[in-house]
Amino acid sequence: MSEGDTFTLDPRLAADSHFIVDGQLAQVRLVDDARYDWLVLVPRVAGAVEWFDLAPAQQRLLLDEVGLACAALQATTRCEKLNIGALGNIVRQLHVHVLARNTGDPAWPGPAWGASQLQRRGEAARDAAISAWRLAFGPGKPG
Amino acid sequence: MSEGDTFTLDPRLAADSHFIVDGQLAQVRLVDDARYDWLVLVPRVAGAVEWFDLAPAQQRLLLDEVGLACAALQATTRCEKLNIGALGNIVRQLHVHVLARNTGDPAWPGPAWGASQLQRRGEAARDAAISAWRLAFGPGKPG
Repeated sequence: MSEGDTFTLDPRLAADSHFIVDGQLAQVRLVDDARYDWLVLVPRVAGAVEWFDLAPAQQRLLLDEVGLACAALQATTRCEKLNIGALGNIVRQLHVHVLARNTGDPAWPGPAWGASQLQRRGEAARDAAISAWRLAFGPGKPG
Repeated sequence: MSEGDTFTLDPRLAADSHFIVDGQLAQVRLVDDARYDWLVLVPRVAGAVEWFDLAPAQQRLLLDEVGLACAALQATTRCEKLNIGALGNIVRQLHVHVLARNTGDPAWPGPAWGASQLQRRGEAARDAAISAWRLAFGPGKPG
């Protein structure tokens, strides 16, 4: 399995999240749910489904990029807890959720994934959130 | 943060899962739910809450041990999908869930974590499952 130009983002991931930045391995995207600070990392590796489908160096690079996303979330949100999940029961293309959680958020203390339908941001809030996250990951930060 | 003799397993993790084997970093435990093949890895690092609380080498070792658990689950269950999750909204001690998922399982396609109360195995089934998992991880395999 190799990183190549045959990578295509799954249409559901494309519809449910917005591009923030390309890390060295993974595309970082903001999930379009106004209730959560919720990122999803999608390695640009054609055909990858499970984390351990990746080559060992890519497995570790993905971990490092998840770590960068966690650090950005902690710095930005000062959240109580981070949640990391690689599920893929619905969308099989490998993607890792990284999100900020707090006592009293809508799904607390359960997982936010699949708990309810996304509550999409309005256009202005969406654009502001995208801009803020692009700044948080500034040039060169994620790779 | 260092691995030391001050590590104590959280009482809820202790009550809800059974010891299988000690990897180099993490204790591998079988969650006591008859509906799922569900492992939980608990790094023996006192005070760790987030994956990225660990030292970088430990972060990667945990990833490698999650990979071994995934390989064992795939080999044993031939499951359709693996789910990996580090949540910790209820139990703060760092622990990573690794479980086998299949179309039609009780929580499918949602996350199994927190979907419903554990359905505990009877004593005989529990002992058989523990024995089988100890064999799957055989001497020397996880570390």
